[in-house]
Amino acid sequence: MKILIINPNTSESLTDLLAGTMRRYARPDVEITGMTAKIGVPYIATRAEAVVGANAVLQILAEHHMGYDGAVIAAFGDPGLGAAREMFDIPIVGMAEAGMLTACMLGQSFGIVTFATALGPWYKECVDWHKLGARLAGISMADEPFDEIENVRHEKESLIVKLANRAVDCHGADVVVLAGAPLTGLAEEISEQIPVPVIDCAAAAISQVDLLVRLQLRVPRKGTFRRPCAKQTIGLPEPLAARFEGRR
Amino acid sequence: MKILIINPNTSESLTDLLAGTMRRYARPDVEITGMTAKIGVPYIATRAEAVVGANAVLQILAEHHMGYDGAVIAAFGDPGLGAAREMFDIPIVGMAEAGMLTACMLGQSFGIVTFATALGPWYKECVDWHKLGARLAGISMADEPFDEIENVRHEKESLIVKLANRAVDCHGADVVVLAGAPLTGLAEEISEQIPVPVIDCAAAAISQVDLLVRLQLRVPRKGTFRRPCAKQTIGLPEPLAARFEGRR
Amino acid sequence: MKILIINPNTSESLTDLLAGTMRRYARPDVEITGMTAKIGVPYIATRAEAVVGANAVLQILAEHHMGYDGAVIAAFGDPGLGAAREMFDIPIVGMAEAGMLTACMLGQSFGIVTFATALGPWYKECVDWHKLGARLAGISMADEPFDEIENVRHEKESLIVKLANRAVDCHGADVVVLAGAPLTGLAEEISEQIPVPVIDCAAAAISQVDLLVRLQLRVPRKGTFRRPCAKQTIGLPEPLAARFEGRR
Amino acid sequence: MKILIINPNTSESLTDLLAGTMRRYARPDVEITGMTAKIGVPYIATRAEAVVGANAVLQILAEHHMGYDGAVIAAFGDPGLGAAREMFDIPIVGMAEAGMLTACMLGQSFGIVTFATALGPWYKECVDWHKLGARLAGISMADEPFDEIENVRHEKESLIVKLANRAVDCHGADVVVLAGAPLTGLAEEISEQIPVPVIDCAAAAISQVDLLVRLQLRVPRKGTFRRPCAKQTIGLPEPLAARFEGRR
Amino acid sequence: MKILIINPNTSESLTDLLAGTMRRYARPDVEITGMTAKIGVPYIATRAEAVVGANAVLQILAEHHMGYDGAVIAAFGDPGLGAAREMFDIPIVGMAEAGMLTACMLGQSFGIVTFATALGPWYKECVDWHKLGARLAGISMADEPFDEIENVRHEKESLIVKLANRAVDCHGADVVVLAGAPLTGLAEEISEQIPVPVIDCAAAAISQVDLLVRLQLRVPRKGTFRRPCAKQTIGLPEPLAARFEGRR
Amino acid sequence: MKILIINPNTSESLTDLLAGTMRRYARPDVEITGMTAKIGVPYIATRAEAVVGANAVLQILAEHHMGYDGAVIAAFGDPGLGAAREMFDIPIVGMAEAGMLTACMLGQSFGIVTFATALGPWYKECVDWHKLGARLAGISMADEPFDEIENVRHEKESLIVKLANRAVDCHGADVVVLAGAPLTGLAEEISEQIPVPVIDCAAAAISQVDLLVRLQLRVPRKGTFRRPCAKQTIGLPEPLAARFEGRR
Repeated sequence: MKILIINPNTSESLTDLLAGTMRRYARPDVEITGMTAKIGVPYIATRAEAVVGANAVLQILAEHHMGYDGAVIAAFGDPGLGAAREMFDIPIVGMAEAGMLTACMLGQSFGIVTFATALGPWYKECVDWHKLGARLAGISMADEPFDEIENVRHEKESLIVKLANRAVDCHGADVVVLAGAPLTGLAEEISEQIPVPVIDCAAAAISQVDLLVRLQLRVPRKGTFRRPCAKQTIGLPEPLAARFEGRR
Repeated sequence: MKILIINPNTSESLTDLLAGTMRRYARPDVEITGMTAKIGVPYIATRAEAVVGANAVLQILAEHHMGYDGAVIAAFGDPGLGAAREMFDIPIVGMAEAGMLTACMLGQSFGIVTFATALGPWYKECVDWHKLGARLAGISMADEPFDEIENVRHEKESLIVKLANRAVDCHGADVVVLAGAPLTGLAEEISEQIPVPVIDCAAAAISQVDLLVRLQLRVPRKGTFRRPCAKQTIGLPEPLAARFEGRR
Repeated sequence: MKILIINPNTSESLTDLLAGTMRRYARPDVEITGMTAKIGVPYIATRAEAVVGANAVLQILAEHHMGYDGAVIAAFGDPGLGAAREMFDIPIVGMAEAGMLTACMLGQSFGIVTFATALGPWYKECVDWHKLGARLAGISMADEPFDEIENVRHEKESLIVKLANRAVDCHGADVVVLAGAPLTGLAEEISEQIPVPVIDCAAAAISQVDLLVRLQLRVPRKGTFRRPCAKQTIGLPEPLAARFEGRR
Repeated sequence: MKILIINPNTSESLTDLLAGTMRRYARPDVEITGMTAKIGVPYIATRAEAVVGANAVLQILAEHHMGYDGAVIAAFGDPGLGAAREMFDIPIVGMAEAGMLTACMLGQSFGIVTFATALGPWYKECVDWHKLGARLAGISMADEPFDEIENVRHEKESLIVKLANRAVDCHGADVVVLAGAPLTGLAEEISEQIPVPVIDCAAAAISQVDLLVRLQLRVPRKGTFRRPCAKQTIGLPEPLAARFEGRR
Repeated sequence: MKILIINPNTSESLTDLLAGTMRRYARPDVEITGMTAKIGVPYIATRAEAVVGANAVLQILAEHHMGYDGAVIAAFGDPGLGAAREMFDIPIVGMAEAGMLTACMLGQSFGIVTFATALGPWYKECVDWHKLGARLAGISMADEPFDEIENVRHEKESLIVKLANRAVDCHGADVVVLAGAPLTGLAEEISEQIPVPVIDCAAAAISQVDLLVRLQLRVPRKGTFRRPCAKQTIGLPEPLAARFEGRR
Repeated sequence: MKILIINPNTSESLTDLLAGTMRRYARPDVEITGMTAKIGVPYIATRAEAVVGANAVLQILAEHHMGYDGAVIAAFGDPGLGAAREMFDIPIVGMAEAGMLTACMLGQSFGIVTFATALGPWYKECVDWHKLGARLAGISMADEPFDEIENVRHEKESLIVKLANRAVDCHGADVVVLAGAPLTGLAEEISEQIPVPVIDCAAAAISQVDLLVRLQLRVPRKGTFRRPCAKQTIGLPEPLAARFEGRR
């Protein structure tokens, strides 16, 4: 099984980090390829950056989807997830979605904990898009600047632990979802310090996409994610244009 | 990995049917053991029958949980799921839950299709308990009696296909969830006749519990599913009494 | 009018306490009989205990319902309420339900106040089952252990008063619902110390079931609480088996 | 116990009809006095008419509340209910509220059935005000003109029966609430023709207000229905002015 | 364009204050006439006062609506808004509604800030009536008495600023809506002290009603605000009676 | 006042059509400039096309926003609206948002009527994003192909009228919102054939943005639409890169 990991952020070290976590959790016969956005920002934190990231996701999928059995959109807010599902025939899973749905099997409510205030509004929209607000205990954000995105999980480790415990004690979170690609790997390291399950969204995502691929479900011909009719385009990169225009 | 399949119905042939589906979808190193309720009804269809079934689930888990890495409650309404999660330390997944959460990754809304009118109210409560009502397109029930529960999936096949198509066309279902243990195996057979993905809940459940076991998350010490304090009991079967009383 | 009070807890002194409150509030021609669960725990606090309690409720009703005009399930979370309504033809009221619906006529939102942290998650599920979450100001729980369940209402009296006032001042509760059978009788004693109406659920429940009996409504033949079709059973106590199998 | 029935409609024959039903359902020691609005319309059907009716309710209560233990606002949309609760210290129950809360103990969802299309929007606002929309199966309205409001329950009887059955079969109503003061008395007559319980709101209201009076709860000093501070007024009838100004 | 400003409060200086703000924000060709309630209280703060105010609104409109192109109900809780829309053919806008809908274009959630605790419950009902609760961050109320309603905006200025900042920082308000007619004019004065947009509801209301008038939409003949059928009345002031009775 | 109309579709004739409607409804001193997306599809109908369109919106705003007092995103699903609000300091209004909020002042619920089935899922997401689902009566879509997007409003006129009437009669719509830029101008033409107000979203949008500009509200420094911190980018067009990087 070949899985494409699409990092909509431009940081290649994040791609490596994410692919690393996923390889640790994937079954041996799952082959993981990470790709990094060529346009955009080092890490997506806002709606505007997510628009740019969603575009990158579609471009990467348009160019590469045919060689893969499934794909993961490897940023917590799931930029472009609905759009990608419309356009491509392989199972595609978002990291936020995978983390949250997995958490649903472990508690009545999950708390989202992340490393920067800027992420709050976009993450809230993501929860609402998935209509999982009734399962959300709250979103907790570290509110101080950090030095390096690649290292933020170590730099903020003790603060994240504190926020996670507060999510449990004050917001009533039954599960903690660590949100934000740069935090991958941290869940394992801090799980002993938090009295409830802590989800690593990269681990959840690779597992959920594997699950979907193995269920071998049909591609929808009706419903919200049926493939749209072909339409002429202008100004788009060729692979994406070809896909929109029904030439691929 | 050893997974316990708990059939809260008293029909052993259903247990075999469910275990069969699960073995087809499980990875090779997953060892599946099916157990059948010793008390109750051949198939659970109502709240009252679910009370009896939930009790059977707790008794089976109390007696056997220690030998397993995870468990599936193999009836669509997930009888006793919350209770079981409180009491036992292994991941436990409900068949309805697994089917619905899996469907969430394939469409905005899922339609539940089942084989008997009696099941509607209980299934609706199950959806509400999981707080997934915002993702539900509707519940469709075959409204004619059937001959044999073990064979209902073949007897009602064409009606189920019709209901599934109506769920797509009239209720706007993006995914169909075939509900009710006796329908397991049918999804594969009819998927060509339905224009959206069709979920077999047994397949989804074995995959989701495998996923949870592999994530190796900690047992909660706080939150809604923390283990309750020990308490004296009277009149319960010994293994369950021992678990309630903190002797195991 | 003969009303059956079903205590799903195994503590007989609780049954007496509940029946005592109810007799004080009942009209003179209401004859009240209390019955205590023969299996289970002294007081139900969790989902797992509620499964066992629900079973006890069904067994008591199966054996005795024919001699009564109505019944009360005398534990706050209303264990087995939906199941009981399906199976038996007399009006049946839950203590939580009666307390909450009565509170709805006295304020826009009610606060639930109870004596132990363990009760929170189960009570929340109960509120949600009744779809009264939009009227709930919050659930407040005393978080320290207590000595004796029969005496907890006196032992924790001042703490309950404090929590009730906090529910009013901080959560915006317009009414306080004292939750948990062991608290019956306390509302009268502390009402002067709390600036809003305080509901005793036992008083509310006996009054509501009396009301339903006097309305002389028909037994449903359709809808969610119509009696399920007869079905074979194994392993159940004879009266319950007879009811499931349509022999009574 | 003395109960004041406030008919916010100007039709005295409706007052008599309502009081008649209530006397049939009330306990012997309940003394019922009906009063009819002196300003307004024969029967309230719209928001604008409800504004006028709410005013009449406040005026009647201001003049007479001191002689009564409780009151019923005897029109389905509960005009002025919240306002009346703020201003007066006796329990006050709305006919819609009483019918709906009583229905909640008999089914998961109730269907409201009434005799004129015009009533729909106002009734929907009433359900929403009580935050009972999650329990509402639907509102069904006879859509043809009628001759005489005092006789509409007989004139439209067969249509009401048809609508009630449709509410059960098509909307999934578990209980039918007959809405509109002019329908009182009809529930008893048609209950055999409808397969679920049918609520007469006048019967429910007199029973619920009796229940509240007997619970002897305290008047709120905090919360949403605490009495507002005294305030100067101009142009109001003396009893109401006196109440607003804190002189009574 | 002629716009009628209906102050349902009896304070004429409030009418002048409101008309003053509106004239500052209105386009030059908008002619604004303020009218003050002849019955009621100096400023409406509760449901009971709103019933009286709603009545005043209907009376003023019945007498004067024909000379105007549109109207504003100039009190935050929008007393009588639905009733007025039913009865009259010109666009009518509520001050709360205008403030909240305008805020919706400036943030995901708005915080309502007002000058007296008494206003909270009524304002909450107003938000719910408009079904805008999902956009509400919270309602913040100054909780100390004030001297003079005409001057409360200056007397409480620093407290309002504090509450507004707390709404932003603690409740997550993206916009602040200053609620209560007596606060009009304050938004401009304090906007520099609050880090998000601050809405003056009078400014929003005159602008929204202007917008509606200019769209020249048709009067509804169906739907929730279609004009009710003519009906006999008793005891109403002539212009309102004439309107109810279809004579005008 | 200078308003920028951003057409995220690539069809210039649509831009002219939209600008035409807007000029008819705008006040004389409003100067309207239309700009057309240089990349994308002739008309946006799906999530994937909306991603591309949102990108175009950001690019146009980045290049031109400084010369304008306000902007309209002139496509019904409001592509990029949240992102644009984060990034730019002028008021920006979406056409769907303007149409729906305006409709809220004219009825309790609005029906969305559009010209192609493909638009349904994306429009539903748009309604949910604005959290206006409780005001939505339904979305009705013409389900047959059309010849020319520029002319679809005439080609489908009679079908649109039929759908609008059905929305009123069957879904209970109090107002009809004609959705989709290509329908602009149609509302005026068909309003006599529909018994409720019909909203032209272009007319509503130019009016609402004018209103916002005239309120002269401050740019948020906190809350969901505060401008994000500067961040390095790669691969973006210079004006957008400059804006993200804080260089403009």
